[in-house]
Amino acid sequence: MKKYDLVIIGSGPAGEKAAVKAAYYGKQVAVVEKRADLGGAGTNTGTLPSKTLKETALYYSGLSDRGLFGVDKELERAANVRDFFFRKNQVVEQQEESITANFKLHNIDTYVGTATIKDPHTVTVAGKDACELQTEFILVATGSYPFQPPGIPFDGKFVHDSDTILNINRIPRSIVIVGAGVIGCEYATIFAVMGTQVKLVNSHEEILTFLDREICRELQTDMERIGVQFIFGSRVDEVKILPDEHTHNVHAKLTNGEPIEADMFLYAAGRSGTVHGLGLEELGVEIDKRQNIVVDETYRTAVPSIYAAGDVIGFPALASTSMDQGRVSVTHMFGFHDQEKLSPQFPYGIYTIPEVSVYGMTEDEAQEKKIDYCVGRARFRDMPRGKIMGVKEGLLKLVVERQSRKILGVHIFGKIATELIHYGMDLVQNEDTLSRVISRVYNTPTLHELYKYAAYNALIEGHYMDDPVGH
Amino acid sequence: MKKYDLVIIGSGPAGEKAAVKAAYYGKQVAVVEKRADLGGAGTNTGTLPSKTLKETALYYSGLSDRGLFGVDKELERAANVRDFFFRKNQVVEQQEESITANFKLHNIDTYVGTATIKDPHTVTVAGKDACELQTEFILVATGSYPFQPPGIPFDGKFVHDSDTILNINRIPRSIVIVGAGVIGCEYATIFAVMGTQVKLVNSHEEILTFLDREICRELQTDMERIGVQFIFGSRVDEVKILPDEHTHNVHAKLTNGEPIEADMFLYAAGRSGTVHGLGLEELGVEIDKRQNIVVDETYRTAVPSIYAAGDVIGFPALASTSMDQGRVSVTHMFGFHDQEKLSPQFPYGIYTIPEVSVYGMTEDEAQEKKIDYCVGRARFRDMPRGKIMGVKEGLLKLVVERQSRKILGVHIFGKIATELIHYGMDLVQNEDTLSRVISRVYNTPTLHELYKYAAYNALIEGHYMDDPVGH
Repeated sequence: MKKYDLVIIGSGPAGEKAAVKAAYYGKQVAVVEKRADLGGAGTNTGTLPSKTLKETALYYSGLSDRGLFGVDKELERAANVRDFFFRKNQVVEQQEESITANFKLHNIDTYVGTATIKDPHTVTVAGKDACELQTEFILVATGSYPFQPPGIPFDGKFVHDSDTILNINRIPRSIVIVGAGVIGCEYATIFAVMGTQVKLVNSHEEILTFLDREICRELQTDMERIGVQFIFGSRVDEVKILPDEHTHNVHAKLTNGEPIEADMFLYAAGRSGTVHGLGLEELGVEIDKRQNIVVDETYRTAVPSIYAAGDVIGFPALASTSMDQGRVSVTHMFGFHDQEKLSPQFPYGIYTIPEVSVYGMTEDEAQEKKIDYCVGRARFRDMPRGKIMGVKEGLLKLVVERQSRKILGVHIFGKIATELIHYGMDLVQNEDTLSRVISRVYNTPTLHELYKYAAYNALIEGHYMDDPVGH
Repeated sequence: MKKYDLVIIGSGPAGEKAAVKAAYYGKQVAVVEKRADLGGAGTNTGTLPSKTLKETALYYSGLSDRGLFGVDKELERAANVRDFFFRKNQVVEQQEESITANFKLHNIDTYVGTATIKDPHTVTVAGKDACELQTEFILVATGSYPFQPPGIPFDGKFVHDSDTILNINRIPRSIVIVGAGVIGCEYATIFAVMGTQVKLVNSHEEILTFLDREICRELQTDMERIGVQFIFGSRVDEVKILPDEHTHNVHAKLTNGEPIEADMFLYAAGRSGTVHGLGLEELGVEIDKRQNIVVDETYRTAVPSIYAAGDVIGFPALASTSMDQGRVSVTHMFGFHDQEKLSPQFPYGIYTIPEVSVYGMTEDEAQEKKIDYCVGRARFRDMPRGKIMGVKEGLLKLVVERQSRKILGVHIFGKIATELIHYGMDLVQNEDTLSRVISRVYNTPTLHELYKYAAYNALIEGHYMDDPVGH
């Protein structure tokens, strides 16, 4: 029986980064993956594929150029679906090759099969590479799967969850998306940009409730502009798939009894942790009602040799945080001391078209906490760079502590928001002030000039005019 | 006679920002501009137009999509020139409107005409708005003009300098560009991407000598890949324009006597300060042999009430630094204390296709200064985001002090390098270490992940393996 320092179950973002880090520091590592391909949801069904589809959608729709040249390119739908998915598959393949090469480089053993934890130091693999592995530590990085509400006829053809939607072979003329969370909003914009008629049904009256309200309104307005129709405070019931010859293949009813129909339905109603059959509860590992593994801040479960990281432990369930959770867990297992905890805050990137990205305190939080604050805003269209790009939408907003002038939060809606946020993350982490932002030289023309313009705007909004120099 | 606190000569980036800052703080400000349009070279002949042309070139050539879909779109040249320049003119117009609105908002008076400084507190305006202005301070922000070597038949049609090139009404089939500085390299890539055959003649053996050598080699290799032909260690002599019916309209000779010919010639051989006729020397303002005004670190000239900022004072002559020089000069005139000096370092953005942007120490400088350093590299194509974009080229390089692990310099070649550099600027200014970069969460997939990958690479390159945790 082969002996390891660490056996990892799952090769997604959390599992991969944990494996490479442990191996880099000389530990013997094995990864058990139930799929034939490495990479988990990050590579195969979630992060990468949906982001690639977004880029492809932008390309074919010509939306990215609309503002620039004032013309709409007609989307030749049927002809382009093949390319649309070809590109996605190519990126997925390349990423899998990268992970395989990375594992080989670091002498990480991989086993294809289904894992069960027999005891706190033994993992049993069933399937292709069936065997039993002895190990000092176990990391559960099995990810999540889409929650399928009961009574919905998921067929992977007309009615989809957030996994099967990536295998469609046609762009629907119309789609009903249920759930206006991150996944629902991302797909709503992707399909809208591809020319699909999109209805987004949400049980709440608002989208993305964890975001700054003003940024949300900007996104919502822009989604409406590109054709997304919102149906709030409603649910979808009695979903029925009708024979192919109908124009609308899926028929259903809204809460108020009104019929709703479309070519395709997508349920984006949350995901659950993949814990079934691992044998965790039998060993004393705690699992909550959303099927997420309960861990402490070192990512250790109730069983000292068993850790868990990534989607399987729940919020925030981002590829970015999952990777670092994997790395941090390894740091604690082996006492490396180089990355002992995750920053309590992290950038949040939403890959809608255009993007949203946020870091730190929202204006709503500042109000709730009764902080004396002011805000500074800069619009993309007012930047020289924005003019070159021809963008109409886009807002960067700073939340600032009035007395100290320290930047508490950065909230961005607009192109490459997920890139732009990192500079703001640094400002908040370093407790930088408006003066610091203003005194710096920024490349021009760039979108990073938004920070400087927003800082100047905060000086006005904060009524610093009486004492402009901060004495 | 109208009395002002500040009279500014020139409405380019330095003049505009100085005017708005002084007016914002309640000062009476006038701007004298010799052109009918506001904005100077930043808006009319330099920064914005060339960057807009770059975006337009990318769009029409399809280069930005080549990597993404593996197909070359054929550039329909003749048909697109009109659009190419339409877009440039539109952006310029919008930016002029912005500046006009900004001046109106802040009650800044503008005078169209040629300015002469009569005495340290009086500016005479000749032309449309002829008058005499009394003022406490004068800011000279007159910019620069292209140096025209003697004996070259500049006609603004076949033989261009860096101003007239923006008024061409055809895309040449071939062009000879003389000078491989920033302007020469930017236009070489713009024309190459538009399908023009480009020869770049340079008297030195290297391009952009102030950059990190490795980054330069990356750029040069990529320029060769898109078709730019370099002719090093040579000059161009005996330039003659031949009648229109010839295929190549401009004929010349290289230093070695070989003929060189093309549809069009562009001299990108440096710029000189616009000081002629201002009456500066008569008042005792010092001007160097490159026609640049000599100022101290507060941007004051030898005459206490006269300041100068922007291209007219020479290096670095970037729109970004010029704007802040304007702001800093105003801070000193009126004792505002909020922005007393320019950061000694600034990001340098070169808008080639793709871009280059750098901040802080180069590897070559580290060697010269005998600093014990190591480097960390990450390639765009190895990032998940790079795979989605389908890029082949692109490199981010960190120069790190080995003992302290502090980041001394960041050097980037690749898409949106001018945006990406700002995060690196912050790392260098804050003396952040590799551990800091590694311990942070980055949005994925983004190009900012390059920083994390490069930091990990630096750990390997720096041979920290023996002591990976920094004890």
